[in-house]
Order: sequence, then C-alpha cells, then structure tokens
Amino acid sequence: MTDTGRSPDTNRSWRLDRRPDSDPADGNLRLHREGLPEIADGEILVRNVYLSIDPTHRIWMSDIDQYMDPVELGDVMRGGTIGVVEQTRSSRLSVGDIVTGQGGWQDYCALSARMVRKIELASGLPLTAYMGPLGNIGATAYFGLLEIGKPRPGETVVVSAAAGAVGSLVGQIAKLMGCHVVGIAGSDEKCAWLTDDLGFDASVNYKSGSIYDTLEAACPNGIDVYFDNVGGEILDTALTLINLNARIATCGLISTYNDLEQGGQGPKMYRNVLMKRATIRGFIVSDFLRRYPEAFAAIRHWLRIGALQYRVDVREGLEHAPDVLKLLFSGRHDGKLIVKISEEP
Amino acid sequence: MTDTGRSPDTNRSWRLDRRPDSDPADGNLRLHREGLPEIADGEILVRNVYLSIDPTHRIWMSDIDQYMDPVELGDVMRGGTIGVVEQTRSSRLSVGDIVTGQGGWQDYCALSARMVRKIELASGLPLTAYMGPLGNIGATAYFGLLEIGKPRPGETVVVSAAAGAVGSLVGQIAKLMGCHVVGIAGSDEKCAWLTDDLGFDASVNYKSGSIYDTLEAACPNGIDVYFDNVGGEILDTALTLINLNARIATCGLISTYNDLEQGGQGPKMYRNVLMKRATIRGFIVSDFLRRYPEAFAAIRHWLRIGALQYRVDVREGLEHAPDVLKLLFSGRHDGKLIVKISEEP
Repeated sequence: MTDTGRSPDTNRSWRLDRRPDSDPADGNLRLHREGLPEIADGEILVRNVYLSIDPTHRIWMSDIDQYMDPVELGDVMRGGTIGVVEQTRSSRLSVGDIVTGQGGWQDYCALSARMVRKIELASGLPLTAYMGPLGNIGATAYFGLLEIGKPRPGETVVVSAAAGAVGSLVGQIAKLMGCHVVGIAGSDEKCAWLTDDLGFDASVNYKSGSIYDTLEAACPNGIDVYFDNVGGEILDTALTLINLNARIATCGLISTYNDLEQGGQGPKMYRNVLMKRATIRGFIVSDFLRRYPEAFAAIRHWLRIGALQYRVDVREGLEHAPDVLKLLFSGRHDGKLIVKISEEP
Repeated sequence: MTDTGRSPDTNRSWRLDRRPDSDPADGNLRLHREGLPEIADGEILVRNVYLSIDPTHRIWMSDIDQYMDPVELGDVMRGGTIGVVEQTRSSRLSVGDIVTGQGGWQDYCALSARMVRKIELASGLPLTAYMGPLGNIGATAYFGLLEIGKPRPGETVVVSAAAGAVGSLVGQIAKLMGCHVVGIAGSDEKCAWLTDDLGFDASVNYKSGSIYDTLEAACPNGIDVYFDNVGGEILDTALTLINLNARIATCGLISTYNDLEQGGQGPKMYRNVLMKRATIRGFIVSDFLRRYPEAFAAIRHWLRIGALQYRVDVREGLEHAPDVLKLLFSGRHDGKLIVKISEEP
C-alpha cells in the first residue's frame, strides 16, 4: 500500500487549506489522516465508495455570498457521495445499506441517518447511475428543463456544456418532449456524439468559428429555451437569439467561476430580457428535493426503454480528487466525473 | 395662431426623419402638415387630446430587434393617446365618445374601432387619470409588481425611478400589500415625496453618495422584489443585495436606452441569479391586456379610498412633444409626462 492509499482504520480527508485565487489548483486542499470518526445516536458510519466531482465545488471553495455556506478553512471539502453503512446507531438504516448524501471528500464519514437517502438498486443499473441520471445530475436536468424551461413541442431548446453530465440529459429529455434540440460543446468529437448518438438535431463547437453564426444557423426559428450551464459569452450569444417569451434556466455559470471574487462582465445583451419579455431563473436542484421520486420514476422509465444514454468517467483514488476537479474545468473528460474511493460492496 | 399651432382642418404629425445616435435630440423627428385623414369602413376619426410620453418611445426610434416593430423612417411617431371621436364609420362607437389607443404623435388619427378602448368616465376623476393610474401606467405597476414580483407581506420591495409615473404606483401598491418599501430616485426632493407623502419606508437618492451603502442601509433584510425601471448600475447594486428566491420584474432599462446600438455592459453581479436562485422576468403591459379590467377595478378602489396618489405633468402643445421626450430622460419633470394636443371635450 502506498503512502496515499486507503486503509480500513484510517480516514483520509481533503480539507480546505486556502481559498483559490482562480483555478482550483494544487495547494488549496490538503490531505489529512486521522482515525475513523465516532458516531453519535442517530448517526451512521459510512464508507464512501464514490465521490461526485461537480462544478459547484469551485464555488464552495470561495468565500463569496452563495447559495450554501462556503466550506470553512480547515473543514473537510464538501461533496456528494455514495457509500455503504458500516456502523449504525439509527433504526432507520442497517449495516450494508447503500446510501447517498453529502459524505465529503474523505474515506469515511459520520452522518445523521436523516441526512442521507437509501438507494434501492434497480436491476440492471450500475451503482454509478445513482450519481448520474438517477442522482442530482438527473434531477437537475429534469427539473431545470421541464419546470423552468417549460419546453413545448416544436420549440427550440439550446443547452450549453451539452456533452456534460447534465447537458447531455437535458438535450435527450428535450428531444423526448418533441423539441428541436441544439447542443453547444467544446470539440468536434463531443459535437458528433450529441448528434450521432444522442439524437440532437444540431450541435455547435464553440471553439470553432463564430459562435453567433453557427448558433444562429443551428436555430433557424430562434431560441425558446436556453439551458445555461456556462454563462459568459455563450449566454450573451443565446440572449441575442432568443424569441419572445423565452425561458433561460440558469443551472451553472462555469465559464465565470474562476472569476468569482472579481465579479464578472454580465451579459451585454441583457436588454433582451425586456425586449423579448424573457424569464431568467436560477435554481439548484435541492429546491426540488421533495419531488425527486417523480423525476427518478420518469428517468428510470426512459433508461429502461433506451431513450436516455449517459456516460460516467470514473477515476480511481481519493488521493487524486483535486486533479479530477481540475480535469472537470479543463473539459478533457468523458461524462460525469466520479472519483472511486473504495470498492463497491 | 402661430405657425406651429393646431387648426381644425390640418393634421400636424411628428414623423421619424432619422434614427437617433444617442439622445433622442432635435432633428430625428420632423413636423409634417397635411389634411385630415380619411376613414374607411370600421374606422373612426379621432381628435387627439392627450399624448403619453414614455421611455419606450426612445426604443421605438431605434432600428434594433425589440418587442414591437421599430417605427419606420417617414412614419408618424407611435404613441398612446386619449382623444374624442369626431367621425365614425363603425357601429361600435359614436361621435363624442372618448377613446384611448395608439393615436400617435399627431392632431388627428384614423383608427380601427377595434383597436381603441372606450373610456367610461368615473365621477371625480380627471381625464388625465386614464393616462396614469387608470391607463397603461397603472396596469404596468399592478401586473409587474403583483404578477411578476409576487410580493408577500413583510418582504422588502425596491423600486427604481420610484418618483416616476410607474414607480410611484408600484411603491404604493407594495405598501398596500404589507411590504417594506424602498424607492430609488434622483433628488432629495423626490425622495422626500416618496417617504413623506406616499408612505414609502425609505428612499435612496442615487445621485448622492454610494448607492450600495445607502441601499444596503435601507434594506436591512435584503431585497426580495426589485422592480426595475432603469437597469445599469442600480440593477447591479440591487442584484448584489437580493435574497434567496428574489424576483426581479424588468419593466424598463432607461439608463441604457441611449446605448442601444452599442449594446450594454450587463450586470456584473449576474452570478447572483444562480447564487440566489433568483427570477428575472421582462414584461410589457400589453401582455396582460385581457386582464386590465381587474387591475383598474382595484386601482379605482384604491384611488377612491385615498390609498393611491399620482401626479401628472401636462405640457401644452404637440409642437413641443420632442422637447417633452427629452425632458423625460433628463428626470426634470414631476409626474407622468403628458402632452396636451387639444382641449378636452
């Protein structure tokens, strides 16, 4: 076993050591080692199996006013996990149960049994699916598109970061709703995946040529719904092309996250909010927590009939988690990024 | 009668001669003279009495993509009017009826009888009230605040251009709804009117000191609803102070209208749309046209019980209309700006 490897009587945890200036580069998080956490009444000890790596981790590292408290310096880095109950002091859960919750960037965690959700495995679906279409990712795509975007058949739906975990689901669900679907992604290979494999009507490589010209060509009837994962210039371009009564679901602004402390530029075409009587609404998926079963019932059905595809990109080893976060921002990954911390039960 | 005066057999009309570069200054509109318009079947000839001068006139003069078609070069400048029916070829309306519609910047207009609304005068209210609280202005405040802002008792509502025609009504209706109401205006005198006469809880002179500091002090519990008439820096400041699930009703962006062709800057704190899960929605009042009677019933009641005050600033003479439009943008007026074109019947 290497120096960085996991052992059954040690808890390794990535703690926030300093706040990033721009990139969430090395040195902001530090790997600590200690004994396993003790659990109190009502709590469970969970061995983390998978850690979800998400753009919002970058936000949590910054001490700005945000939708949750920032992670405090010295605290374990926050993160969504799937794990196995190894000890329990709650009647709600048994040893061996598989649960999902905010286990953090660590090998083990003590969690209130009320703060996790037990996963009932459906036949034929791997555990990682519960970190993708049957987890927050899927719920984000489902509620963001359907509740905020409110697409109607025949309308044009544009999604940015379309080859990403959320974006690829958004586009496929929009196709199921009968929309003309255009995805924006950062390579020809990703773009080809969207149209050839996922059934998008068109895709736009934002790194190739004028994003305005290519997006306009891909949306001959304008844009009715824009599902925004990135903000910045692409948002501005989308705003330029929106139709009357367009809806913009603001799910993420990843292009601006490394600029948080300085503030951003803001969309130059903001005036179209008025001119087009558009609605822009920001959301986080936990706003819809009580309605997750509804989303997962639909998504499970769509997975079963083969209408939804997804990719996961699993990287081994908690010790590599900060590198995986950097990878997320580079775009050089292939599906929902997950760190595998320990073996599946 | 002077050269510029009105005569009963001549129609004077302001026509768009060239598009403004920035300010809607002299020379963009040109006064034409011709005979009275002929009316066709289903039409009425209206003598315009009052012309409403609104920020949106500036938008219509620009050849940008907007919520209505821009006014074409050579066409009569578009504008809302109240007038008297002098001839009729429609069974819907009689000579002497008072109607409101888009009569334009001219003495007389031929209009389809279907395109105007007959005003049934209520006792005690002057005709100009139908260009203020009982016209588009009132409906804008009513639907923008209640349908888009959705204020709840105890919440903080901030309105910009608060001493303006729409803003002053917004603030008073928000007070009726039990909100903490803060108005932003451009002089100490206007600010005093808001708090002393209209009952706003606080007011902020944006020309005096740091708008951020004064607005923050006036909103100790943050901002739940921002009714935006101006855009620009004030919008940016409001975005900085919004609470979770804030609503921003985008009614106007007057601070940016002279910058339309260049595009604007965009709110730097746009990221708070996501961080605060805010909703921004642009609207124009005609979206709610079918529900006007509901708004006017409420507003008539509030006027009757003395809960709503309003001011009109009537300037005499169609020939001065372009100067009145400039005055609107200077802020040196006192209430809803109206041009009186001819005598009330």
